[in-house]
Amino acid sequence: MSEAVDVVIREAIPDDARELLQLSRQVSIETEYLVMDETGMDLTPEMLAMHLENLYESANNLLLVAFVNDQLVGNASVKSSQEHRVAHIGEVGISILKEFWGIGLGSLLMEEILYWAQESQVIRRLELTVQAQNERAIHLYEKVGFKLEATMARGARDNQGAFLDVHLMSLMID
Amino acid sequence: MSEAVDVVIREAIPDDARELLQLSRQVSIETEYLVMDETGMDLTPEMLAMHLENLYESANNLLLVAFVNDQLVGNASVKSSQEHRVAHIGEVGISILKEFWGIGLGSLLMEEILYWAQESQVIRRLELTVQAQNERAIHLYEKVGFKLEATMARGARDNQGAFLDVHLMSLMID
Repeated sequence: MSEAVDVVIREAIPDDARELLQLSRQVSIETEYLVMDETGMDLTPEMLAMHLENLYESANNLLLVAFVNDQLVGNASVKSSQEHRVAHIGEVGISILKEFWGIGLGSLLMEEILYWAQESQVIRRLELTVQAQNERAIHLYEKVGFKLEATMARGARDNQGAFLDVHLMSLMID
Repeated sequence: MSEAVDVVIREAIPDDARELLQLSRQVSIETEYLVMDETGMDLTPEMLAMHLENLYESANNLLLVAFVNDQLVGNASVKSSQEHRVAHIGEVGISILKEFWGIGLGSLLMEEILYWAQESQVIRRLELTVQAQNERAIHLYEKVGFKLEATMARGARDNQGAFLDVHLMSLMID
């Protein structure tokens, strides 16, 4: 890291599509900690750009991008359904390039998510899944108030095929 | 119910698209018990037919249809991701027209799912969500071996907007 660090966090816009696809590829190579699919990340840049436009307009979906010195180094998402029965539930995902772990980006992104959720007037429950071995992430989620709801046996598999426990955590928004 | 009941359970094929869309609409009017989205059920019949063809070919996705006297009265699905880390996890959903509850169709469909999962050589964990108030369904799931992993606060909402607890249940396949 250079001495002068310029951090920008904002909502993603269609023009971010190309960089987001690059970020997604690099993150998926760097870490085995991912559990969920990265919805949209197998699209072409053009299709992802359209998807980003819809996200930007959505009341219960959010995609944040984090830049350090103008480089896209992380993102955070809240995904929700349009179905009435579950539209108040937002699923949180955060991914950050390994080189930029440990400098507080995860906390910044999570604070933005919580602020957005409280302002949304739609989201009443945030939930996320995280590998039980990912202690750094779990510590962050607990710090901002997420509580363990379940440990899911065989909730994921590592690259060698071994089963991993996955935590389901949630946070009520009032 | 008439006296002679002819029950057929088989995998869905593209020609079932139109009837499946009708079934989905009727079930969603009849019951407040649904939690999950019905993926694909907002498609046109033509697009759903293409989706059904892909499902039919998939090693870790299943859609069963149940006919009583040649009428489509229910379906059961197992949905899985193509992502390596979670491709062994199948999410189970069953829906049956209210008029045909209580005659054992749910058990029949679940038995077929378990048999298919055991034969799949891919599925190693089945999971499902069910409203905590849906005692009839929970009883069925427990009967075939599903265990409670979590009670998710605000896991769904009823038509009046009140929050409902939702159970997360799972069954390991070995």
